[in-house]
Amino acid sequence: MKTKKNSTIHDISKKLNLSIATVSRALNNSSKVKPRTKAKILAAASELNYQQNHVALALKSGQSKIVGVVVPFLNHNFFSSVIGSIENTLSKENYHVAIYQTHESYETEVKHIKALLNAQVDGIFLSASKETKDYGHINEVLERNKPLIFFDRKLNVPGTSSVVIDDFKAAYEATTHLIKQGAKKIAHFAGDFQLEIYQNRFNGFIEALKDNHLDFDKRFFYRTDQNVEGGIKGMKSIWQYKDKPDAIFSSNDFAVGGAIQVIREYGLSIPKDLLIAGFSNEPFTQFMETPISTVDQAPLKMGETAAEIFLKKIRKEENLTKENSIILNPTFFPRASSLKNRS
Amino acid sequence: MKTKKNSTIHDISKKLNLSIATVSRALNNSSKVKPRTKAKILAAASELNYQQNHVALALKSGQSKIVGVVVPFLNHNFFSSVIGSIENTLSKENYHVAIYQTHESYETEVKHIKALLNAQVDGIFLSASKETKDYGHINEVLERNKPLIFFDRKLNVPGTSSVVIDDFKAAYEATTHLIKQGAKKIAHFAGDFQLEIYQNRFNGFIEALKDNHLDFDKRFFYRTDQNVEGGIKGMKSIWQYKDKPDAIFSSNDFAVGGAIQVIREYGLSIPKDLLIAGFSNEPFTQFMETPISTVDQAPLKMGETAAEIFLKKIRKEENLTKENSIILNPTFFPRASSLKNRS
Repeated sequence: MKTKKNSTIHDISKKLNLSIATVSRALNNSSKVKPRTKAKILAAASELNYQQNHVALALKSGQSKIVGVVVPFLNHNFFSSVIGSIENTLSKENYHVAIYQTHESYETEVKHIKALLNAQVDGIFLSASKETKDYGHINEVLERNKPLIFFDRKLNVPGTSSVVIDDFKAAYEATTHLIKQGAKKIAHFAGDFQLEIYQNRFNGFIEALKDNHLDFDKRFFYRTDQNVEGGIKGMKSIWQYKDKPDAIFSSNDFAVGGAIQVIREYGLSIPKDLLIAGFSNEPFTQFMETPISTVDQAPLKMGETAAEIFLKKIRKEENLTKENSIILNPTFFPRASSLKNRS
Repeated sequence: MKTKKNSTIHDISKKLNLSIATVSRALNNSSKVKPRTKAKILAAASELNYQQNHVALALKSGQSKIVGVVVPFLNHNFFSSVIGSIENTLSKENYHVAIYQTHESYETEVKHIKALLNAQVDGIFLSASKETKDYGHINEVLERNKPLIFFDRKLNVPGTSSVVIDDFKAAYEATTHLIKQGAKKIAHFAGDFQLEIYQNRFNGFIEALKDNHLDFDKRFFYRTDQNVEGGIKGMKSIWQYKDKPDAIFSSNDFAVGGAIQVIREYGLSIPKDLLIAGFSNEPFTQFMETPISTVDQAPLKMGETAAEIFLKKIRKEENLTKENSIILNPTFFPRASSLKNRS
């Protein structure tokens, strides 16, 4: 198989018998090169297939038409929906969306951000890993004059923008719903409070209890990762006492998936023995024979809004470091898993 | 905010009072530059922050330490599992994995592949879109001397490698299981036959029917996309006749999710009225009150094997275009949705 090599400025220099400095200046669109010479160089560059190298062009023009999206994981429909929406909005402007996942590792997040900067991306969308406490890599993005837009999981770094939902309100609404359905002893599957979203979901939960003069039994609190295993352990933990909870408000849907496996194993039934509400509106919550009540986090609107902030900045319609803090409205979907008093 | 700019060869040339040609040659590790001069240039490059630019280095060394993974969509756990496994294997070798999704569009696939080549990635892992018929973009990868490894959805292009499962065998096994459980009139939710995997799943299904002297009623055939909506339409389609099927073998799990919604609406029960088996072992198949029988496609092994082929090629332990065609063994998981005769 024959190898097709991209040409370099050396090839252009050789072909035109011009110095490398002149060729380089022309490709950098320097005013030091005469227009006629510049035209000749650009023609040769085109002929020699030099123009096809976006990265080389990006190194010169500062625009690669690639944006990076960095998320904790891809196997959650919420994240893939946001990404799909960013892609949808930006593909109309001919941007490519390169996706990286951190698996919740701060170190991986830093590496990916640096790799994206080195790949000359035009901007970065980030949903932070739960380990991230240091903001050096975020500031590096801003120092390189690239927009950084957080979505869902934001860090409070000056100069960045963010699109999130009102997690407090969503949790307050879901909890109030459970109480209205008769729940008095509600368990909570919490996320890592290092992340604002999980702290806010917990706060909304507690506030709803207070407003309804209900106590929170700390034995019914379980901190879990967003996965099935966490829900299995969580259900076993909250069910070990003589006194049982009558509902669960979970800060994520996957833990609900796990809890349901234990509920089945224990011979319990939903919503008769236990009301359940989750968070994220993962598609499987609808598949279940007893569909699960959950909070929709407006992923399509979130992706679209984040992409529009990027476009405004890249088009210089607003300053790179002008901070947009968009809070979208979540929607609570009551379904069979928490409807004790069906009309 | 102060802007940190990457330095260029111009800055190095200026600082050392050396020609751009010499600096460029030194950075290209040319033997034409004296070792002492080269050392001086590399030191200046390092000092001026030039070395931090991977892409510039990649343009010179031919190694970016980035690989690209292109998949039809990310919201299927199968694809995110394969990607996770590729990441896991390659991160040990300090590779970054940039992920792109095509949404089944050939045009998007071509654009992404070109963007990845332009970003100087070291190799590409591809699960082809169902629209892809033309192989120009695949050949371009090979012409640029980069390994291309297909997974799950392969195209038969000389010089590429692939890691797939034995879809025929998996479908044959799932269908035989349904027959052993008493099914005589099995419906099939098929994928797009443009993709070999769906053709093979159909062929395995038909072969199992034949070997058991069962006819296939073409009215019970429904071609669907891999999503819930497809399953809803499919179930309504196969249930419209007086004569009803007694089982469904679906070539994907998401259509099963959709079919179950209709089954519930119709007041039918699984496995009493209808046996069901899906394909892909999506996590939700386990969450269900009636867990769904399905085929596990060995995503972790698939990702690891594909990554190892890449490493062998990049380390030149084998020729770039030496073709590896790995066929992994799928595993059929019988669960409650198809176990009529529970022991």
